[in-house]
Amino acid sequence: MSPSRIARAVVTPIAFADPPLLNVVGVHQPYALRAIVELHTDTGLVGLGETYGDEAILERLAAVAAALPGHDPYDLNGLRRLVTTVLGGDTGGAGASYGGMLEVSSAHPGVHSPFEVACLDLIGRETGRPVSDLLGGAVRDRVPFSGYLFYKWAGHPGLADDDWGAALDPDAIVAQAKRMVDGWGFGSLKLKGGVFPPDDECAAIEALAEAFPGVPLRLDPNGGWTPQTSVRVAERLAGVVEYLEDPTPGIDGMAYVAARTEVPLATNMCVIAFEHLAPAVAADAVQIVLSDHHLWGGLRPSVQLAGICDAFGMGLSMHSNSHLGVSLAAMVHLAAATPNLTYACDTHYPWKTEDVIVAGALGFEDGSVAVPTGPGLGWSWTGTCSARCTSSTSPAACDGGRTPPTCARSSRVSR
Amino acid sequence: MSPSRIARAVVTPIAFADPPLLNVVGVHQPYALRAIVELHTDTGLVGLGETYGDEAILERLAAVAAALPGHDPYDLNGLRRLVTTVLGGDTGGAGASYGGMLEVSSAHPGVHSPFEVACLDLIGRETGRPVSDLLGGAVRDRVPFSGYLFYKWAGHPGLADDDWGAALDPDAIVAQAKRMVDGWGFGSLKLKGGVFPPDDECAAIEALAEAFPGVPLRLDPNGGWTPQTSVRVAERLAGVVEYLEDPTPGIDGMAYVAARTEVPLATNMCVIAFEHLAPAVAADAVQIVLSDHHLWGGLRPSVQLAGICDAFGMGLSMHSNSHLGVSLAAMVHLAAATPNLTYACDTHYPWKTEDVIVAGALGFEDGSVAVPTGPGLGWSWTGTCSARCTSSTSPAACDGGRTPPTCARSSRVSR
Repeated sequence: MSPSRIARAVVTPIAFADPPLLNVVGVHQPYALRAIVELHTDTGLVGLGETYGDEAILERLAAVAAALPGHDPYDLNGLRRLVTTVLGGDTGGAGASYGGMLEVSSAHPGVHSPFEVACLDLIGRETGRPVSDLLGGAVRDRVPFSGYLFYKWAGHPGLADDDWGAALDPDAIVAQAKRMVDGWGFGSLKLKGGVFPPDDECAAIEALAEAFPGVPLRLDPNGGWTPQTSVRVAERLAGVVEYLEDPTPGIDGMAYVAARTEVPLATNMCVIAFEHLAPAVAADAVQIVLSDHHLWGGLRPSVQLAGICDAFGMGLSMHSNSHLGVSLAAMVHLAAATPNLTYACDTHYPWKTEDVIVAGALGFEDGSVAVPTGPGLGWSWTGTCSARCTSSTSPAACDGGRTPPTCARSSRVSR
Repeated sequence: MSPSRIARAVVTPIAFADPPLLNVVGVHQPYALRAIVELHTDTGLVGLGETYGDEAILERLAAVAAALPGHDPYDLNGLRRLVTTVLGGDTGGAGASYGGMLEVSSAHPGVHSPFEVACLDLIGRETGRPVSDLLGGAVRDRVPFSGYLFYKWAGHPGLADDDWGAALDPDAIVAQAKRMVDGWGFGSLKLKGGVFPPDDECAAIEALAEAFPGVPLRLDPNGGWTPQTSVRVAERLAGVVEYLEDPTPGIDGMAYVAARTEVPLATNMCVIAFEHLAPAVAADAVQIVLSDHHLWGGLRPSVQLAGICDAFGMGLSMHSNSHLGVSLAAMVHLAAATPNLTYACDTHYPWKTEDVIVAGALGFEDGSVAVPTGPGLGWSWTGTCSARCTSSTSPAACDGGRTPPTCARSSRVSR
């Protein structure tokens, strides 16, 4: 068989409605920005990837896309070199893409990621194999997720309230959790903290523990507390939370807390690149790393991360930003093929009202998503975006971001 | 396309002539024992793997082979579970397979390895892709090896001398090196030490440095020295050797030496399983890990090891036992797809006079082997072993080991 080559790469900025969820740096904007990468081969196959969609990353994605024609989808080492060549050494990190909260020394992994996912999607389509098979084979046929709870306003300023309403105290958080559990069947729950005083957020966790006995609970203030406050919270929530996620910023701060509590500490902030692993291990700073294929360079690097966690005695969970269905499919394949991913994964998915995939294609049952068994990510590509930003670099050009270009693709997941 | 399944697995013990090479535990036996694994699919494909062939591992390979029919070659996570299930927890380590010099807590990785390689060979054949493509793509089209020098006797006791003759002093080692360099073009050299007093072996290295100026040199006494002697050797050979390999046994001993010299320390003895990495990193015991896909569980785990070395600032080289062409092909594909494998790999290959592959199929030029570009490991399977041990557990049954069953397969490497 003649090996296929990439004929063209298309990067489509997407803005989709995001509710007024609160966190340590403020409130989610009315629209979340993502980018969909399409790789078209000279044999007529299409592979998909998804990542952040702010202007900084869109420019970088476009530069890589322009250099991709002729590339072999199997040549993932070559893809990495290509990204390095195109972006050069001075990428100024990638903080802007990550809500301003995360610092990495290079934007390369984040730019590499959606192209790597799309290449694996293509390989899967060419071989008739699901992406999980390309990562070593699924060890589970369903991937469990945690219900992701947020303090939130009833509506964005100047816009109508959403149907979730406000959640600004423990009772409202418990009510939100009931809706999450009733609607999606989640068997574990995570509260995004860092919004109210720590004691108020502890009270919310304690209310959840009372309302959902036995359900694993997590609290994540995005590094909003001092090390000392973090220790105090850990003392209060010992035996109540499954883990505390990023109570305080930085490897040194986390190590200070870890040395003073038996509560496991998790992170998706101080260990978000391979360069952070050696210092984190040396400082015994974290017990659980939240992987994120968008941050770590794709699915194969995330498998690599999983192996490192296994070898160095760290647990593994999975982080989520506001995302669409292409990322959810990639997350599910990765989680399915990662034996030591023993914690339920995070996902913002229930908060989303718009998608690039048809509604219900990746459904939640009992808090989990079935691993697609069709070729690649599991989609049958039968159409193209019905609406698309005409500018490749500025999603704001789409009606000021108020009318997001949703893609009603006629796509189905094969099970 | 209908996915292929493994229909049967065949394990063939092979004994091949091995010269009287000396090391810290004595002398190589007249015949080296290996096992060839063949996986036949229900679609008529054959995948090959190779590993150690002593009785302990042959029994374990046979047990796994019996459980493999019906297995999907892509399901490598499942293969690992299958090996665990078949072997159970009490494997008593695998020291016997490794010349009695190495200790691991489980035989699982070593048993897993040839089946994993054979599965990747099958996937490559099914997709028309070389194994290097399945590991992320070749980053080099030729893999450099080091010339592997040994003190040796002229012949095995009671058998005729071989044409290399004796090598028991620096002059003879230099002469051996000249033959290696002239015949195979090696651009770096490694001396197996631990045979004579350390000062004599230092003199041999110094003679090599004088005879081959600028050629990287390595000395490996297989942990034969005390930490104190190792420090003294390191002082003498600083600036002369590229690295010292396993001067002294154990992570603690290596850490003692490493703290007292700037000479990089390499190992294929104290870090030979994932369980050894965390303590070695914590102790800063080694600067270079010699990978070995036979020990580490196969090619994908070896890619995993490479990633760990990269993340934790350790260099990567590659170890060799006496091996046949199937292992050489696997080593070449792995090395080709491992960007941070920056040292020339070890190989016993020039010492071998018999093989299961046709002579010259994998040739050395300028000390390197071209990466096969054909499907799988790069072989065209056109025959079966012309001679084979009839017992699956006792290679000695083949004429007392004196007439080894060599397999003159009509195989060719596609380039």
